Amino acid sequence: MEKQRILTGITTTGTPHLGNYVGAIRPAIAASRRDDTESFYFLADYHALIKCRSPEQVNQSTREIAATWLALGLDADNAVFYRQSDIPELPELSWLLSCVAAKGLMNRAHAYKAAVAANEAAGEDSDFGVTMGLYCYPVLMAADILLFRANQVPVGRDQVQHIEMARDIAGRFNHHYSSGDNPLFVLPEAVVDDQVAVLNGLDGRKMSKSYGNTIPLFLPHKHLRKHINKIKTNLLEPGEPKDPDDSTVFQIWQAFATPEQTAAMRQAFAEGIAWGEAKRQLFELVDNELCDARDRYEQLLGHPNHIEDVLQQGADKARAVGRPFLEQLREAVGIRPLR
Amino acid sequence: MEKQRILTGITTTGTPHLGNYVGAIRPAIAASRRDDTESFYFLADYHALIKCRSPEQVNQSTREIAATWLALGLDADNAVFYRQSDIPELPELSWLLSCVAAKGLMNRAHAYKAAVAANEAAGEDSDFGVTMGLYCYPVLMAADILLFRANQVPVGRDQVQHIEMARDIAGRFNHHYSSGDNPLFVLPEAVVDDQVAVLNGLDGRKMSKSYGNTIPLFLPHKHLRKHINKIKTNLLEPGEPKDPDDSTVFQIWQAFATPEQTAAMRQAFAEGIAWGEAKRQLFELVDNELCDARDRYEQLLGHPNHIEDVLQQGADKARAVGRPFLEQLREAVGIRPLR
Repeated sequence: MEKQRILTGITTTGTPHLGNYVGAIRPAIAASRRDDTESFYFLADYHALIKCRSPEQVNQSTREIAATWLALGLDADNAVFYRQSDIPELPELSWLLSCVAAKGLMNRAHAYKAAVAANEAAGEDSDFGVTMGLYCYPVLMAADILLFRANQVPVGRDQVQHIEMARDIAGRFNHHYSSGDNPLFVLPEAVVDDQVAVLNGLDGRKMSKSYGNTIPLFLPHKHLRKHINKIKTNLLEPGEPKDPDDSTVFQIWQAFATPEQTAAMRQAFAEGIAWGEAKRQLFELVDNELCDARDRYEQLLGHPNHIEDVLQQGADKARAVGRPFLEQLREAVGIRPLR
Repeated sequence: MEKQRILTGITTTGTPHLGNYVGAIRPAIAASRRDDTESFYFLADYHALIKCRSPEQVNQSTREIAATWLALGLDADNAVFYRQSDIPELPELSWLLSCVAAKGLMNRAHAYKAAVAANEAAGEDSDFGVTMGLYCYPVLMAADILLFRANQVPVGRDQVQHIEMARDIAGRFNHHYSSGDNPLFVLPEAVVDDQVAVLNGLDGRKMSKSYGNTIPLFLPHKHLRKHINKIKTNLLEPGEPKDPDDSTVFQIWQAFATPEQTAAMRQAFAEGIAWGEAKRQLFELVDNELCDARDRYEQLLGHPNHIEDVLQQGADKARAVGRPFLEQLREAVGIRPLR
């Protein structure tokens, strides 16, 4: 039996925080070390252009996010780690897919619908400020997945629609251009892990850039300590028993601790550990898990050439898979050398 | 002063007819021989995929249309003659342009609006049967033009909108990503030749595939004669004076004849030339202009490898221009090697 191929897209905007790390990055990196599956990871910089018009920021984010994943131990030898914009086969395939994809499908995309709703609420034309990039990106995303015949795509619940769209487009293409026995595209499956840890932020709401309540992943020691000290707690004094299940401090502890450490901290909460002490221990725990990676991260940022080399090797590996398949797809639609 | 660059897209669907030849192909081929301009000609096979789901037909049309232009004397050494699908920079650029192109602009495209109108008239959902290819192709067309910094694009009146859209998209890109003094894109101009001959077809209406009244360009002698004999005429007998300006026979004559020959035929009409005789002379005239090209056409179709070689050389020349420019554009939006 062939190995399952798992494809993960990595947004190249924003600074990763502990919530991203626990919920997405750490499990994905663990998966990169498995040898019973084949993992593809790509930096989605073409997608970043939709939202970001600052060239410096696009470039900077790519560097930082690539360094983050490598520093955290992404196994770029075992997995395929590449930058989307190094794969010219992707926009090519995107065009081929456009020619079968229904426009009506794009009209139902969440991001587009949200933009239209906001425009209508503001009394604007429904397409005001909407670019073709925003409208068409589900097709590019389908290309991202389909070019590599990925079987599984780990996504958040809000991303499931993209996989459904990719399946719809792949199905149409298969229908027009291949036989039922031997379809060209693999229909990908969305893998949603509802067990995944969702961290709360400083204010107790879900940790999210849009709430401004995040703890960035690679803060220097001192700043990490300061952030952790800022986590909102209640007014219970040292010695008073505290409810761990109502505490962000405990919740983050749990995401980094072994089961034994978690049990011990639960006990300490029952015994009335002081908030200051709990936070000190939390800082030690988090800092301990991240400090080596932080050093590697700083080192990598100082040697961007090295990151570039890794990405180029990844692109070579990805194109070795994607190029011959694109040739097959071109042949299927009738784009062939004359002979 | 730099040479003006002229870019012409060639549809790769359908069989060219005398109307296409006189109205578009012949003047374009004459332009390929000029040395005061630089001419780019491309076979628009990516666009063909929007309408044509038959791989055989896509491939066959490309072969026939390429052979037609070469047989008619397109100077592939002086001009740049290439197949769109051999230039991966085009779909890449298309994505970069998508990220600045307004969706509202596409809503106004004639082809899309026509599809919506037909759907609404039929009581269907307005986007019924509309593919993303149909909707997005003005962006790809903008890439076709902008990648090569074409100054001029000869088009029919119904195509002027595409050039306006390309200018709009180029203007936005320049605004976001370059300075006013040193814009990245050249704003192309539509060149509409209202003097261009529009031929009538067998039934006296404009010669058009959709009317089924065409005379295909490379018919064997016998069939060309038959077609010309089928041109609709009135019931005037031999000896009765005939009005040349009301006659498709005369109109086609004029498109192929020298001024002297035209004057002579006008005289013959006044003197009551028989329809059969006028058609015989017309056949001779047309056949004479086309017969060498027809032989070359048949020869080329027998040697598709040769056509392929010419197209590959053209692609090399086109990419030598397009590739470095795309690198500059990628750099401008922030897609850069890490260093």
